[in-house]
This record gives sequence, structure tokens and C-alpha cells, in this order.
Amino acid sequence: MKFKLTSVDPKSAARTGILQTGHGEIQTPIFMPVGTAGSVKAVHQRELELDVQAQIILGNTYHLYLRPGTELLERAGGLHRFNGWSKPILTDSGGYQVYSLGANRKITEEGVIFKSHIDGSKHTFSPESVMDIQRTIGADIVMAFDECTPYPCEYAYAKDSMNMTHRWLKRCVDRMAQTEPRYGYEQTLFPIVQGSVYNDLRKMSAEFIAAQDQPGNAIGGLSVGEPHEDMYAMTSLVCGILPQDKPRYLMGVGTPENILECIALGIDMFDCVMPTRNARNGMLFTTQGIINIRNERWKDDLSPIDATLGGYVSTFHSKAYLRHLIINKEILGAQIASIHNLTFYLWLVSEARKQIEAGTFTTWKNNMVKIVSQRL
Amino acid sequence: MKFKLTSVDPKSAARTGILQTGHGEIQTPIFMPVGTAGSVKAVHQRELELDVQAQIILGNTYHLYLRPGTELLERAGGLHRFNGWSKPILTDSGGYQVYSLGANRKITEEGVIFKSHIDGSKHTFSPESVMDIQRTIGADIVMAFDECTPYPCEYAYAKDSMNMTHRWLKRCVDRMAQTEPRYGYEQTLFPIVQGSVYNDLRKMSAEFIAAQDQPGNAIGGLSVGEPHEDMYAMTSLVCGILPQDKPRYLMGVGTPENILECIALGIDMFDCVMPTRNARNGMLFTTQGIINIRNERWKDDLSPIDATLGGYVSTFHSKAYLRHLIINKEILGAQIASIHNLTFYLWLVSEARKQIEAGTFTTWKNNMVKIVSQRL
Ligand SMILES: [Zn+2]
Ligand SMILES: [Zn+2]
Repeated sequence: MKFKLTSVDPKSAARTGILQTGHGEIQTPIFMPVGTAGSVKAVHQRELELDVQAQIILGNTYHLYLRPGTELLERAGGLHRFNGWSKPILTDSGGYQVYSLGANRKITEEGVIFKSHIDGSKHTFSPESVMDIQRTIGADIVMAFDECTPYPCEYAYAKDSMNMTHRWLKRCVDRMAQTEPRYGYEQTLFPIVQGSVYNDLRKMSAEFIAAQDQPGNAIGGLSVGEPHEDMYAMTSLVCGILPQDKPRYLMGVGTPENILECIALGIDMFDCVMPTRNARNGMLFTTQGIINIRNERWKDDLSPIDATLGGYVSTFHSKAYLRHLIINKEILGAQIASIHNLTFYLWLVSEARKQIEAGTFTTWKNNMVKIVSQRL
Repeated sequence: MKFKLTSVDPKSAARTGILQTGHGEIQTPIFMPVGTAGSVKAVHQRELELDVQAQIILGNTYHLYLRPGTELLERAGGLHRFNGWSKPILTDSGGYQVYSLGANRKITEEGVIFKSHIDGSKHTFSPESVMDIQRTIGADIVMAFDECTPYPCEYAYAKDSMNMTHRWLKRCVDRMAQTEPRYGYEQTLFPIVQGSVYNDLRKMSAEFIAAQDQPGNAIGGLSVGEPHEDMYAMTSLVCGILPQDKPRYLMGVGTPENILECIALGIDMFDCVMPTRNARNGMLFTTQGIINIRNERWKDDLSPIDATLGGYVSTFHSKAYLRHLIINKEILGAQIASIHNLTFYLWLVSEARKQIEAGTFTTWKNNMVKIVSQRL
């Protein structure tokens, strides 16, 4: 995997780049739609490519491991073949989902023992097994197996957890080195910086992660309930330590505002379930601000969902029609809203990219943050 | 509205035709996907046009009247403008839904008083109001307000009901004559033959309906639980009486087998929720037979959903992938299965059309009925 830094903003840490993968190029900064169990909810692959213009999607190792399972994915020739998405795929390590199982999981030095949320069956994830699973899924970008600490988190726990994540990382790196790409294209490991909201831990973790010299790096354990100021402070601190010439992925972030602010801090890659999950509940992100389409206010509004955004569904359908579909729980409402929100997210990062290239990012960003976070 | 009979099968009553409407041509025999509340469930308008190749869709007056309501539909310029479907739309009269409200409706000579299933509010449908509502919705084809009798139905009730349907029809015809098309294109009334499963009533009703000399005619009160033999007998009897040079619409029918058999009896138009409703439950209609995709049998089947059918989703996605989506209750599963089933239904009627034109319909039909009704 190659990353080429193509421009740097003079007034912030924002940058643009091109990430070359075995399934084509990704232009950064980029947002990655979440395709939990092999499908971005309510969005067809063709729409993802042609309407949303997604360049890479994310898959969840925990879900894919349970269903359809690695055996079927292997038989299919990997997730790309199974779900028909031919551009890059990044998979998380499954850790985040496993930890949220609460009483149904136990963390040890060896790994995590957990019970499936589907049938209660017992499974173990270890750094080694999770590398193997992601290889079999066929991820272009494989995430290290880490512990994502909750918020708030005691200092002592955060420190111990971070150190275990670092030890696990060594095992992930070793396992990746001992195994071959599964389907003939490159599969690249991204280590993950942890350390909760503690400056010294984040610094220590970022230095440890940077020293592994992997082709890309990620920041985890943020966007888990901490104040935005903490998210930004940790991101800024970590970006100052991670190498300039490698892509930086901020996991699970976030709102349009979060994304713009973190691009300014030097982040290149984002993912979040928000655009699709909120779409299904009728919350739309638009170029004019945030719309709760269920609101009475939009009942008679026959204007396009977002005329400025462009894109097929956003200009073709009216707010009143989308509201009608969402209120009536019509599946098509979830479809249109999801395509719209993802189109907006991809527009936002592509616009940021243009502004960085033009040297006008900071002014644009400060203005845009106000617009996209206001509720209409 | 003009109907041109273009060919007649030498060995059956099957025929092909072209129905000219204000929103373009319909080639018969045709199947009309059901777009209950202004959306064909889980299928985007673009997919309906490009993948399914639907030529006309159906809307439900009862649902559209309650939500979004005639006021908004009028402001939008009719349902075509509201939902972005620019080909013809047929609306039912709302009667069928109203009768199924059971205790929450009362039928009188004047019309039907009912309570909304949404908020319990009281409403009245009369032949006159239902014509006005369908005009406002903007239907190209407006269905008469009738009483659809249940099955089984006592002879006396069926007869009284049929006579009331006939009296209501007169009021529908008058109302349509006294009112203008709402949005500048033609809106055409189709009367409905009733009479349950009684030969003499069906004969009487068909003669009465034929005598109204409307541009098209429909057969209602079938596919409500009666044996297929009764459905076919009544359809055959009625088709023998209805004029040859006008389109015949058999309401609410049915399975692929029902459709093929009724084309043979002289039916030109069909609608049914089955392809979309069953799709959401994982039941697929294919060129090889019926598939319950939830079945363990398809778990590892990486072959296309229906390679013979063609069409984007049916060849692009595998049975195993669709099964995975349906089992996981992914919305995309409902989307793909719905597009597939509708594509199959439209393929079936278009194939029937070709066979009628070629004079080979009966042999083809007898063979195809066996194939499409077998469970794989
Ligand atoms: Zn998130
Ligand atoms: Zn039906």
C-alpha cells in the first residue's frame, strides 16, 4: 500500500493524499460508509458507487465472523466477491463489538472469550485469530486487535489496557508477517493508538505505534462519549506524533463538524454509522444544516431534499415525499435518506479536499462548521 | 385512453395489445407492481423503471387519502409529481382496504363510513368522493367504487352486494362525466365485475359492466381465498362476455401460475402484492421455480439468484449473499429480493406476450406453469 501526500494546508494540519490499494485509489481525506455485515444498510452497491461515490467501505469483523462466517467468505473468494463491492474494504478488528457484549465477554492476555449475540455460542478472538479472520474476509486494510476503552476510564485501567493493546499489536504484526495475502492482493495492517483522554498515555501510545512503522495508523478509543474538546485535543496530540507520510484514520468519527475539525488536525480517514443510522430515523445532514424530516415543518415542503448537494436522490425527491415515506415507515424512506446522508458525507470530504488543495481550507472550514451543525 | 388489440392466440383466449395513456404506452399482458402509499416497497423509482421495466404501477386510494392526503397531493400536482414516477398509475378505489377494517367500517347505500387504522378518525367514502379523490391523486386509470365480497359469501349477500356495486357504478360514471381531468391528462374509469363465485351473478354483472361501455373493465372479488378452479371459471365466464376490444384487468391476481392461466383466459392486466411481500420474507420467484432463500439449502450456493432471468440484481448477486442478507434482516435483502421478484413478474408477462405474438403461447404456457410453480 502506498500513500502519497499531495498537499498540505498552510494554516492547519489538514492535508490531501492518495492511498493506493489492491482495489484502486482512495483520495484523502475520505469518509468510509459502514457496511456492518457485508451491506451498507439500505444502500445497494451500485448506488454506493454511482450516487454516493464511496471509494472504500468498512466491514465489521465480529458480524462477518458470525454470519456469513469465514468458511463461506473463503469459498466465495473474500468479501469483495461475496457482496459485489470491487473497491477497497477496511475491516475493524471485532474488538469494539465484542467489548460492548458486557457480561458476555472476558478479556485476558491471550485474547477475548465471548458469547455470540445471535445464539450464545462461545468464541475466542486473539490477535492472531483476528488477523487470520481479516485475511480471510479479504480486507485491503486490516485493523489491529486492540482494547477500545470506554469513557470515562480510570487512569490505571487505561494505562494497563494500552500496554496490553501494545503487546497485542506485536502479536498482530508478527502474525501478519507470517501469513500471506489471501486472494492475491495486498492486505495492510493499521495499528491503533489508545490511551483514553490522558495526554501522557496518548503520547506514549502514539510513539509506540509510530515506531512499528506500519503503512498506516489509526486512533481508537475516541468518540465514545467524551467531550468534543477531549476528542480534538487527543487527535491533535496524536497527529503531532504519527508520521506525516502515512495515512491517519480516526475510528468511529463522527458528525460533519467532528470530521471537518479533525481534518484540520491532520486526519485522513473517517468512518461512522451516523449517516446511515440517523437516516433511518429521519435525520438528514444537508449542505444547509441538519433536518429532522419527521418534523411537521417539512410536511408541505416540495423543494428538493438538498438542491445544492446535487446527486440523484437528493435533487429528484422532495422533502415532503421523503417525510411521507419515513413517517409511513416505508423502506424506500430509509433507502433515500441513507443515500442522501452518505452522498453528503462524501461531498463534505471531497469539498474539504478541494479547499485544502486551493489553500482555502481553514476559512471554508470555519464557515462550513457553522452551517452543517445548525438545525433547520 | 386507446386500446389496440395487436394479436390473438389461436389456441386460447390470450391476446396482446397496446394501451395508450396520458403517461405513455402499456404493452399487454402486463403486471402492475403495487405502490401502496406512493412507493413500491423497497424499490426505488429508478430501479422500477430501469431494472424491473415496469410500465405502470398501482396506488392504493385508502392509504394515499389518509397519508399524505389529497391536499398535499394536489399541491404537488398529483402522485406522479409527488413520487417521481412518470409512467402510468392506476389507483384502486379504496374499497378493498376499507372492508378489511372489519368492525371499524359500516356499509350503507350512500357509501362506507370507516375509522382510520392510523388514528381512529372517522371518514366516509362514497362513489362520488372516491372519484374525486382518484382524480386528485392523478390516476391515469380510476377504479370504480365497489364492494368486494369475501369468500365464502352467501348467495343472497353476493347478489345484493353486486346490485349495490352496479348502482354505485352509475354514480361513479356520472361523477366522472361531471368532473374534469385534474392535471391536463386523461383519467379513465374502469368498472368492476362482481358476483362472487356464482355463475349467474357473474354473468349478470359482466353484462351490466359491458353495457356501461367504459374504455376498460375489471374483474374484482376473486383471489380472495376461493379455489383456483373457481377463479379460473369465473374469469373465463366473464372474459367471454366483456368486449374483446377493451382491456381486462383481473384485480389482485396472483401467483405466476395464476397469471399465466388467466392470460390464457383473456386477461390483459394484473396486480398483486405477492412479488414484493413474499420477497421481504425471502420467497423468490425464478425462471427455474420457487425458492425459499432462508432454506439451509442455499447457504453455500454462490450461483446467481437467477442467471436465466438476467437483469442487474438477479445475475450480479448470489443466492448465498441474498440469503445472508435476508437471514440478517438487512434492508438490502428486501431491496434485492423485491427487485428480483418484480423483474421476474415483468419478464413473465413480456415473455407471454412474445409467445402470443408468435402463436406458440399455449404450449409454452403449459410447460412454464409447471416450471414456475415447482418448489426448488
Ligand atoms: Zn460514530
Ligand atoms: Zn394478490
